[in-house]
Amino acid sequence: MWVPGAAGRPGLAVAMAAAAAGLALAMAARRWRRRRPVREVLFFPSPPSCTEELLAEAAGPGAPAQPCPCPLPRRDCSLSRLLRLLLSARRSLDICLFAFSCPQLGLAVRLLHRRGVRVRVVTDAEYMGLRGSQIGLLRLAGIQVRHDRGHGYMHHKFAIVDRSMVITGSLNWTTQAIQTNRENVLVVEDAEYVKLYLDEFERIWEEYNPTNYRFLSQGQ
Amino acid sequence: MWVPGAAGRPGLAVAMAAAAAGLALAMAARRWRRRRPVREVLFFPSPPSCTEELLAEAAGPGAPAQPCPCPLPRRDCSLSRLLRLLLSARRSLDICLFAFSCPQLGLAVRLLHRRGVRVRVVTDAEYMGLRGSQIGLLRLAGIQVRHDRGHGYMHHKFAIVDRSMVITGSLNWTTQAIQTNRENVLVVEDAEYVKLYLDEFERIWEEYNPTNYRFLSQGQ
Repeated sequence: MWVPGAAGRPGLAVAMAAAAAGLALAMAARRWRRRRPVREVLFFPSPPSCTEELLAEAAGPGAPAQPCPCPLPRRDCSLSRLLRLLLSARRSLDICLFAFSCPQLGLAVRLLHRRGVRVRVVTDAEYMGLRGSQIGLLRLAGIQVRHDRGHGYMHHKFAIVDRSMVITGSLNWTTQAIQTNRENVLVVEDAEYVKLYLDEFERIWEEYNPTNYRFLSQGQ
Repeated sequence: MWVPGAAGRPGLAVAMAAAAAGLALAMAARRWRRRRPVREVLFFPSPPSCTEELLAEAAGPGAPAQPCPCPLPRRDCSLSRLLRLLLSARRSLDICLFAFSCPQLGLAVRLLHRRGVRVRVVTDAEYMGLRGSQIGLLRLAGIQVRHDRGHGYMHHKFAIVDRSMVITGSLNWTTQAIQTNRENVLVVEDAEYVKLYLDEFERIWEEYNPTNYRFLSQGQ
């Protein structure tokens, strides 16, 4: 009977040992290279800064490469970090947001949709119609938006990127909140937390599904 | 020379081995018993429920033991869980809150202050004077409260328990938000996150310190 092994074949044994060592090294290097899960907190207000280059870069190679003529500094700030985290989405972005009027964040979400990321947005019925709201532009771009119908506010302010990262806190995505309020946004890439937020998102998404709406017919 | 050891003394060797094993077992048991850090998310609305017993229990042995006559169910809910997390404070409670009008949460904070927990509250100048605000009652009880003075809102909604647990999210501590809004509160007991929130709290606490206020004198 032939037994797999290298007994009596020293050359093969050396080669196999070297291959095993190489594999172990490659695995160790892979572990080393593996990105540490994102764990951070962004604080606001974020100083006014130009995010045009960041957004143009995200729009892809076909985007105009002219430098933005505006006088705002191009610094890293909480807004640019939030944009980068959102723009890191490759497959899905689920957003649950009370107020959404920040043009840069609106553009980032539309860019992701254009890039093929599955974007879903839940928002508050009362606030989505206010002047400056981004919700109309998102819908115009073909993004699915659902909203509450009951009393009370849909007051969440969270997003889930690629079903693996939660972005949550006190921040509504409005320019006023970003530039003038004291706000915090906690970012966590942790399956335990993500599952809880995903479950809440799916619950709300289904609850606000317009095909489930019931309308009173005449005479009722 | 005497060398510590049990060579030649089998009885002692057995006793020492047993003691070592016992110690190892005790340490293992301690590790086993050690509480897992809190990692949870509370979702709202929280159904109306009676929290009188929970608060009476927290008020200590001198508190009246009569059962509450109200018809509300005594169920566990997001509000009771939030109360329990806050009431677990033994040394300090730092709160940064846009709107604070929930009477149960106000009472819990006053109980902690009465119990000797160091309570500090930061809030929004515009919202702290609204009808139903708990801020006046907290100040009346002798709790230190500071507020913003600039434009923009102090829109944070977080608390830090014993400098070791962060409670943050979209929830203002108001009855309306608790009972009718869609809200989330993330709880994390993790030194990395806690440090970031503590630093922000201390920054704001110092910035809103009334001894740093500058007033314009006449003629200026």
